[in-house]
Amino acid sequence: MTAVATNRARVTTPGDREIHVERIFNASRERVWRAFTEPDLIKQWWGRGNPLVIEKHEFERGGHWRFVEHAKEGVHGFEGRFRDIKPMDRIDRTFEWDGMPGYVIIESATFEDLGDGRTKLTTRSLFYNQDERDGMLKSGMEGGMNESYEALDRLLATVSS
Amino acid sequence: MTAVATNRARVTTPGDREIHVERIFNASRERVWRAFTEPDLIKQWWGRGNPLVIEKHEFERGGHWRFVEHAKEGVHGFEGRFRDIKPMDRIDRTFEWDGMPGYVIIESATFEDLGDGRTKLTTRSLFYNQDERDGMLKSGMEGGMNESYEALDRLLATVSS
Repeated sequence: MTAVATNRARVTTPGDREIHVERIFNASRERVWRAFTEPDLIKQWWGRGNPLVIEKHEFERGGHWRFVEHAKEGVHGFEGRFRDIKPMDRIDRTFEWDGMPGYVIIESATFEDLGDGRTKLTTRSLFYNQDERDGMLKSGMEGGMNESYEALDRLLATVSS
Repeated sequence: MTAVATNRARVTTPGDREIHVERIFNASRERVWRAFTEPDLIKQWWGRGNPLVIEKHEFERGGHWRFVEHAKEGVHGFEGRFRDIKPMDRIDRTFEWDGMPGYVIIESATFEDLGDGRTKLTTRSLFYNQDERDGMLKSGMEGGMNESYEALDRLLATVSS
């Protein structure tokens, strides 16, 4: 596998119920947007290199999504519903993991063109309460996210824009 | 239709993000529990007298539920997922209406035996923020809920325990 330059995610907790993540990708906003919204591309990075089955991806307000990652240690299902979509700019959706059903997060992802060929992704996650937020922080979410974003870096280094 | 004694729901807003509803039913806890958990009974009251299609009712932790009410003015879909179930005692689930997709509420319903043949249902709803809570209060939710509970009173007056 070729070495690909990756950037560090910046994780902050600006409120008791929130997690913010900022991550820069070395690719245009259009390429990053496509990688987040086209199932054939999502499959190549979201599962951190593990096979990912996209059971649903109704990419419109009110549509459902459901992704199932087949990792060595087990099968992880994730799902939710799109609250709002602003093309090339923002995706608001709900997010929950089968392991904690009904512990729903609102996730708002914004895509910012940095003007130099790079794109800043900011993801704001809102939890029902601090316990659920802290549970997510302790779950190893940051490691899994970094693995996904590194897989995305590799994809962006190859996908045509 | 025979007149059936109904009780008044008590609606309070103990916090910025909450709605609590207390409602007494003139029936045993077992009968009220069955009316909330058995699809054939749910169908007879949840839709306020309108036809209700129960598309999903996987009544276990992690299971999905989806009810569609066919009212004169339109079709209303509702869905969510069970977070936790304590038989005869409590149902914790998420709840959202198709008209506001992703505006998910955590709803915790407890069933209390009042010891005199009556049952107190307490429903605590937690919203992501005050705006979403206030939106629900202004939506006519209380009127719809009262219609459902009156339909439930009628059902409880007939169903065998």
